[in-house]
Amino acid sequence: MNAIASPANQTFSADWRTFESTHRLRAVKLLTDSLEATWDDDRISHYHFLWLRDNCPCSQCVHPGTREQMFEVVDAPGNLAAESISLNATGSLTVHWSDGHRSVYEAGWLRSHAYDALSRSERADRLYSVRPWESDLLIPTFDYSAVMSSDPVLLDWLLAARDIGLTMLTGMPATGEALENVARRISFIRESNFGVTFEVRTKAEAADSNAYTALELPAHTDLPTRELQPGLQFLHCLINDAAGGESTFVDGFAIAATLRAASPEDFRLLCEHPVEFWNKAPQSDYRSYAPIIGLDSRGEVSEIRLANWLRAPFNLPASEMSAFYRAYRHFSALTRDSRFIVSRRLEAGQMWCFDNRRTMHARKAFDQASGKRFLRGCYMDRDELLSRILVLQRGEPGHSIRAA
Amino acid sequence: MNAIASPANQTFSADWRTFESTHRLRAVKLLTDSLEATWDDDRISHYHFLWLRDNCPCSQCVHPGTREQMFEVVDAPGNLAAESISLNATGSLTVHWSDGHRSVYEAGWLRSHAYDALSRSERADRLYSVRPWESDLLIPTFDYSAVMSSDPVLLDWLLAARDIGLTMLTGMPATGEALENVARRISFIRESNFGVTFEVRTKAEAADSNAYTALELPAHTDLPTRELQPGLQFLHCLINDAAGGESTFVDGFAIAATLRAASPEDFRLLCEHPVEFWNKAPQSDYRSYAPIIGLDSRGEVSEIRLANWLRAPFNLPASEMSAFYRAYRHFSALTRDSRFIVSRRLEAGQMWCFDNRRTMHARKAFDQASGKRFLRGCYMDRDELLSRILVLQRGEPGHSIRAA
Repeated sequence: MNAIASPANQTFSADWRTFESTHRLRAVKLLTDSLEATWDDDRISHYHFLWLRDNCPCSQCVHPGTREQMFEVVDAPGNLAAESISLNATGSLTVHWSDGHRSVYEAGWLRSHAYDALSRSERADRLYSVRPWESDLLIPTFDYSAVMSSDPVLLDWLLAARDIGLTMLTGMPATGEALENVARRISFIRESNFGVTFEVRTKAEAADSNAYTALELPAHTDLPTRELQPGLQFLHCLINDAAGGESTFVDGFAIAATLRAASPEDFRLLCEHPVEFWNKAPQSDYRSYAPIIGLDSRGEVSEIRLANWLRAPFNLPASEMSAFYRAYRHFSALTRDSRFIVSRRLEAGQMWCFDNRRTMHARKAFDQASGKRFLRGCYMDRDELLSRILVLQRGEPGHSIRAA
Repeated sequence: MNAIASPANQTFSADWRTFESTHRLRAVKLLTDSLEATWDDDRISHYHFLWLRDNCPCSQCVHPGTREQMFEVVDAPGNLAAESISLNATGSLTVHWSDGHRSVYEAGWLRSHAYDALSRSERADRLYSVRPWESDLLIPTFDYSAVMSSDPVLLDWLLAARDIGLTMLTGMPATGEALENVARRISFIRESNFGVTFEVRTKAEAADSNAYTALELPAHTDLPTRELQPGLQFLHCLINDAAGGESTFVDGFAIAATLRAASPEDFRLLCEHPVEFWNKAPQSDYRSYAPIIGLDSRGEVSEIRLANWLRAPFNLPASEMSAFYRAYRHFSALTRDSRFIVSRRLEAGQMWCFDNRRTMHARKAFDQASGKRFLRGCYMDRDELLSRILVLQRGEPGHSIRAA
């Protein structure tokens, strides 16, 4: 391949962010299949030849419009080597490859993507942090108009939804459009078989979900019957003249942490055994098969999946059944513990927005005869929440880079 | 709790299916925390008291309208026991509980949900089977009008999409509505930041994806940047007068099986190390973090996640980087092996429908000057596909029950 040389002082990279050169490369040294870089704070980072070639930011390797890669690393020769390397006056690194290609890397980019043990652990530390809560939570509350008109207020709201997982909006107009307007201020809505939006009032024939009855509903997540439960749930109250029907919430992550501390064995059982969830309706038959407590690749709780009335019969080895019921009942009892429960009646003009994969919600039974109750709701995935946050944060110094 | 007795001959259960009594209970015996049932084929199944109480189908425990559970097993006393059990003339089992409740279980239901080792393994065997393919695949092809008008043809199409993962529809009208019509024949469409539907033609400013250029695209899955990749992709061709632009497909599951056999170590690396995928666009910043080869709880390949141009730089321990590049290049090379590649030019009036989490698709570069090329596409999740199949299969004898 005859390479088009990239200018030595280019600032273009396969990214929409800029990477400040917080550290300078003091020395680089060629090894057999990598180069060893020493930084001005004595950190040593190794960069493998294939990794560097794979990440060449030149306009032959990366599309200048989309900033997406056109080069495929499978096309590099198996014996690819750096023939020479040089540090430039601007602090960048130039590599001349054995196949004739030339690549230039900015120091800030190299430092931000270094994969020595220390750099990797620093990036893991910069993940956003979950803030657990109990019954004394002061619910983060935001004004609808401010959220609609101000990007910084929007960002504050979304950070609370991400880190705390329970927020309220006030001052919502009692119109059908208000819910969509505020959801679309974040991104598009996730449709389900209940529609793009759904209405919660009792139906004459409540054949597709207990949610559409006046029954008390125990603490649950919505749509555990789907492979991916919706990340955010919005519930906008237009009318609430009925007696009863308070909303209650518990932090499923706080409960999982309590369970883990009280009984590591019960915690393990709920993490390791998939449970079938099943939406039994005349026109749909949704099933998923996943544990009640989901862990991420670091072993931290990343998801709660539970709606008692949507469970299929447990299908476990008989030798585990008693222990599993002990664990399940333990977890259920914690969701009823007043230590964890935040209770609030949602009034007209207010909206809940909560993390449906973390914050379990419940509803007290209400009296249909006492007055009207009309809520509208919709869902959105975590992907859209996190993307919106990252876009709003662009340009802010030192914003977190998502990794895991 | 004072129970309302269920009629001994009730056929109601917490299900929309009926369970044939293919086997009769010959004997039941009370043990300490379970009962032991012996079937007429000598199979022995144990049912724990809590499991039975949890699954009581009476109208006090299960809502007769929604067939969803109202009873919560956390409310059962910890020392709950069966005081007496009896086999009824109809073959059902009655249990009188120590708290006064009475439950009646149909034999067919009990047999279908038994969790002795043999019953569990029989149900696992009844999972749908993936049918791998290579370049000689005869692409399952269906007529648009037949799919729109006939439920059996619709079911055949969906089973091919589920088990083979690559199908074609012919005879599609060249209208904007045809794609939505046929997708909505299954269920609702999954929206993305590219819209409810998207159009594939070259854009003047192709700033958000290489897909909107005329570039060759290597074999990939769509939206690997999302926590859940879309399960199905639909691509409807309205105009294809341009030279080039053939669609090519490979079965990612067949490639993963080949990789596993040729190099278990390369396979392991791609299963175990999450990779960051990243959609870098001016108005969105989607990231996901998952392995290239996803396994289900049984250790079988359930997902391929890969688009070379959407990968972030690999972030692995330096000691693993060389081996990981070997594995990645190995997998990439297999996606280019003619042994696996099915190539077909999509003509006007045809539509691809394929499993986006299994069947990797690619596009040859095309010549924008030679003619117009206009495709419309959309996505749907596996949940909707599988739900629709189950509803269409209801009433068919012996249809498979999903378990894992």
